[in-house]
Amino acid sequence: MFLKNCWYVAALKQELIDGRLLSRRLLGEHVLLFRGDSGQVFALNDRCPHRGALLSRGRLEGDAVRCMYHGIKFDGSGKCVQIPGQELIPPKLRVPHYPVIERGPFIWVWMGEAAKADPAHLVDLPYLHEPQWRGIPAYLHYDANYLLIVDNLSDFAHLAFVHTRTLGGSEEYAYVSKPTAIERLERGFRVERWHLNSDAPPFHQKVIQDKAAKVDRRNIATMLVPGIFTMETLFAPAGQGAQAGNVAGAREYRNCQFMTPETERTTHFFWSYLNNFEGEDNTISHSLLNSLIEGFMEDKAIIERQQVTLEEDPGFQPLAILADAPLVHFRRTLGKLIDAEQTPGA
Amino acid sequence: MFLKNCWYVAALKQELIDGRLLSRRLLGEHVLLFRGDSGQVFALNDRCPHRGALLSRGRLEGDAVRCMYHGIKFDGSGKCVQIPGQELIPPKLRVPHYPVIERGPFIWVWMGEAAKADPAHLVDLPYLHEPQWRGIPAYLHYDANYLLIVDNLSDFAHLAFVHTRTLGGSEEYAYVSKPTAIERLERGFRVERWHLNSDAPPFHQKVIQDKAAKVDRRNIATMLVPGIFTMETLFAPAGQGAQAGNVAGAREYRNCQFMTPETERTTHFFWSYLNNFEGEDNTISHSLLNSLIEGFMEDKAIIERQQVTLEEDPGFQPLAILADAPLVHFRRTLGKLIDAEQTPGA
Amino acid sequence: MFLKNCWYVAALKQELIDGRLLSRRLLGEHVLLFRGDSGQVFALNDRCPHRGALLSRGRLEGDAVRCMYHGIKFDGSGKCVQIPGQELIPPKLRVPHYPVIERGPFIWVWMGEAAKADPAHLVDLPYLHEPQWRGIPAYLHYDANYLLIVDNLSDFAHLAFVHTRTLGGSEEYAYVSKPTAIERLERGFRVERWHLNSDAPPFHQKVIQDKAAKVDRRNIATMLVPGIFTMETLFAPAGQGAQAGNVAGAREYRNCQFMTPETERTTHFFWSYLNNFEGEDNTISHSLLNSLIEGFMEDKAIIERQQVTLEEDPGFQPLAILADAPLVHFRRTLGKLIDAEQTPGA
Repeated sequence: MFLKNCWYVAALKQELIDGRLLSRRLLGEHVLLFRGDSGQVFALNDRCPHRGALLSRGRLEGDAVRCMYHGIKFDGSGKCVQIPGQELIPPKLRVPHYPVIERGPFIWVWMGEAAKADPAHLVDLPYLHEPQWRGIPAYLHYDANYLLIVDNLSDFAHLAFVHTRTLGGSEEYAYVSKPTAIERLERGFRVERWHLNSDAPPFHQKVIQDKAAKVDRRNIATMLVPGIFTMETLFAPAGQGAQAGNVAGAREYRNCQFMTPETERTTHFFWSYLNNFEGEDNTISHSLLNSLIEGFMEDKAIIERQQVTLEEDPGFQPLAILADAPLVHFRRTLGKLIDAEQTPGA
Repeated sequence: MFLKNCWYVAALKQELIDGRLLSRRLLGEHVLLFRGDSGQVFALNDRCPHRGALLSRGRLEGDAVRCMYHGIKFDGSGKCVQIPGQELIPPKLRVPHYPVIERGPFIWVWMGEAAKADPAHLVDLPYLHEPQWRGIPAYLHYDANYLLIVDNLSDFAHLAFVHTRTLGGSEEYAYVSKPTAIERLERGFRVERWHLNSDAPPFHQKVIQDKAAKVDRRNIATMLVPGIFTMETLFAPAGQGAQAGNVAGAREYRNCQFMTPETERTTHFFWSYLNNFEGEDNTISHSLLNSLIEGFMEDKAIIERQQVTLEEDPGFQPLAILADAPLVHFRRTLGKLIDAEQTPGA
Repeated sequence: MFLKNCWYVAALKQELIDGRLLSRRLLGEHVLLFRGDSGQVFALNDRCPHRGALLSRGRLEGDAVRCMYHGIKFDGSGKCVQIPGQELIPPKLRVPHYPVIERGPFIWVWMGEAAKADPAHLVDLPYLHEPQWRGIPAYLHYDANYLLIVDNLSDFAHLAFVHTRTLGGSEEYAYVSKPTAIERLERGFRVERWHLNSDAPPFHQKVIQDKAAKVDRRNIATMLVPGIFTMETLFAPAGQGAQAGNVAGAREYRNCQFMTPETERTTHFFWSYLNNFEGEDNTISHSLLNSLIEGFMEDKAIIERQQVTLEEDPGFQPLAILADAPLVHFRRTLGKLIDAEQTPGA
């Protein structure tokens, strides 16, 4: 069961080039995404209503697509515009379409009722547009339910044990740092966590000069439904009082991660990890991209095995520890929204 | 749910050589096919009733087969004739057998009640015996329900879009040619379709001299339950009045295709594509064999993806267009026959 | 449904070296097996109760293991001893543990109620300890329910047909030899079978000098719940009266095979095939190991296909022959024990 009336990242902008008919499963539905000759991006159900052939194996014709089984043609709104060898077009012969928003490097779609699609509901992340922030948008596929990735991102203690030598830096992180604030939001949570006088973690060391210098590290993470994660990371020289506001000489990152369900047991994972101190080339962005992939692969191994565990034993009830408070709040919040959406007349 | 009291093609004659114990699943049942030393072909359920071992992994002994787990031996009628170390043979220890007819290049079996098996019910295709017709019988396996292949063959518009550069020849075929006659038969349908003054399609061009000459093309297709398709194809010089009966200088083909369910989701596909203008060698038959395989692979990609679509969403209801009339009639006809067979006392 | 209150072989001793965290599924449950720094072997449920991560992907720390997702640590009894960043440990946060016995080359676990685990219930096989008996303990994995392997071992007629050229020796074995005694035991059966004046089977020929000499062969097989098979094999010079007790010049083997369910459809198969006439090196043991593997692979092909047959048609009812009496008794005995265990208050 998914939340449908909201915006999900469906693709990277760079995937829709050269007239590509991109087939992607979203929330269990097969969706065809394409940029028509007019430049507009369209999303249609990827199934010809005649005999069920994939429209994504069809042919792009202007802003329309032709099914290459029996030649039936649909425009970008899903309306049938031609049946070879037949004059009359039955009005029922149409394909569901999904509202689309293209913003920055991502294509978003609205999987619920088209009439309720409102661009104002899209979570806008300014650093995806602001020129000083640079990053390389990327994609990973997970064989796991998207909420297991949300869970993973909800407790930073895992940085210490899963990512000791990549994104975390030390097991100490789990023992000496604690969330300074956990804020329950209407559609998610916000957590702030400081780790003072610590070694810079490996991914950061790789892109700075003074690798041995101690840092005060601050992460502010936000998670919003359906699965929109951002983290503002700051590394300030240790001891100068960053926690009190002195961030002179600090380095900052912005982390955007979008979990879009492919099915109940698989997930599209889009992200961009941005920095504001890149030089003329993309050296730093590439280093960060590689570091993030390295770290995500560590998560992936654990999360995909969790999925297997849950499928084998759907009755397994995890036991929460204190650090799970944000996770528990998020799951409850999302559950209420889904219930409301499923309730007739709501 | 399959129609059981009818003849299905089970194997090519050439598969039963050298004492082979051929295991083939038909209508969900595992069937052992073999030619005994006497020359007769037998079909038995491919499961030892003792502990369920495959008889096809046993040993041919005359017209009998011995299970090589505990050595129990069954004759070609399925009767147990020896239990090593035991004198008395329990009458219940026997294997179901299936009536068999060998005709031309194909082995047919009757999967229903043996008592009802009547050779007169076998659809006899004269060109499979007549010496002027030559072809190479062949086999393909489909990961799709056999009716999706029947559907495919029921609407020739797909020739235009799926097989443009192989069996079809042009997209025009879908727009300018129409069935001149659709005949509903008691056990299927017959469709005639003319395409006048057209280019010869690629598969035909490959085996004729004057590749640029325009042709009047006629296809007469017949589909009979459970999945027996034949097509008589004629290419006459364009404009001489082939439609009115002047077929001087025409070239003809006979197409036989047999869809036998392996399971609900897989199909054995047997065929022979025959011509009557072969020279001394098999050059033309080989060219046609290759052309047909090329075309079938185009169908296979679409049909197997339809199967996935239907399995993912069993509730999907295709929307018929006018060209689907034969398909709809065939499905209804077959459905009635299956219902009648399933009704007790019918 | 498995019998739980009994000892199963879970691993070879040699598998638990170098601090290995061995993950093995037993009776459907994921079990972590490890030898702690103290030398003791522990078995824990291989699932962190916090979020379900595999403990076997964690870190061995003394006689404890730390989950490397969020760093939670459990001792060898399954008790949680540390949660990084949290003082209070909730008593419910613990991992089920399984009693373990290490004996000879095998590690046994008790999968039922720990309170009922009694070392006296372990089937002790003296030749696994006695120095004159030498063999190489080994492991195979079966894609089949363990009872299909039990069935296989319950009827020696299969030696004649499955293992003619390996462990059996001739098809004659099935016709001229018969069980001289079938003894129904409280927890299994015992069968004795003589084959007089026979050729030595290939596996035996390979390790003796006079390969052509006729032998009187005796097998005494015992099967005990849940799936513990032993066979005492003797080859005496033919005709000297071995059946009456004259076993001068005989060669003997001891065969131990342990079937431990992995899941309902897969099995861990442990064994050791021992002899008492080994020289200084392991030449004979290695020859026997290879011969046994060769024979087991012949069984495996049949048994794994039986599994497929039963999964495809769960309603298949095998028809017993006379030789199945031990098998039928064993299945009934095991069934009663499982029923008793499942009955509340029993």
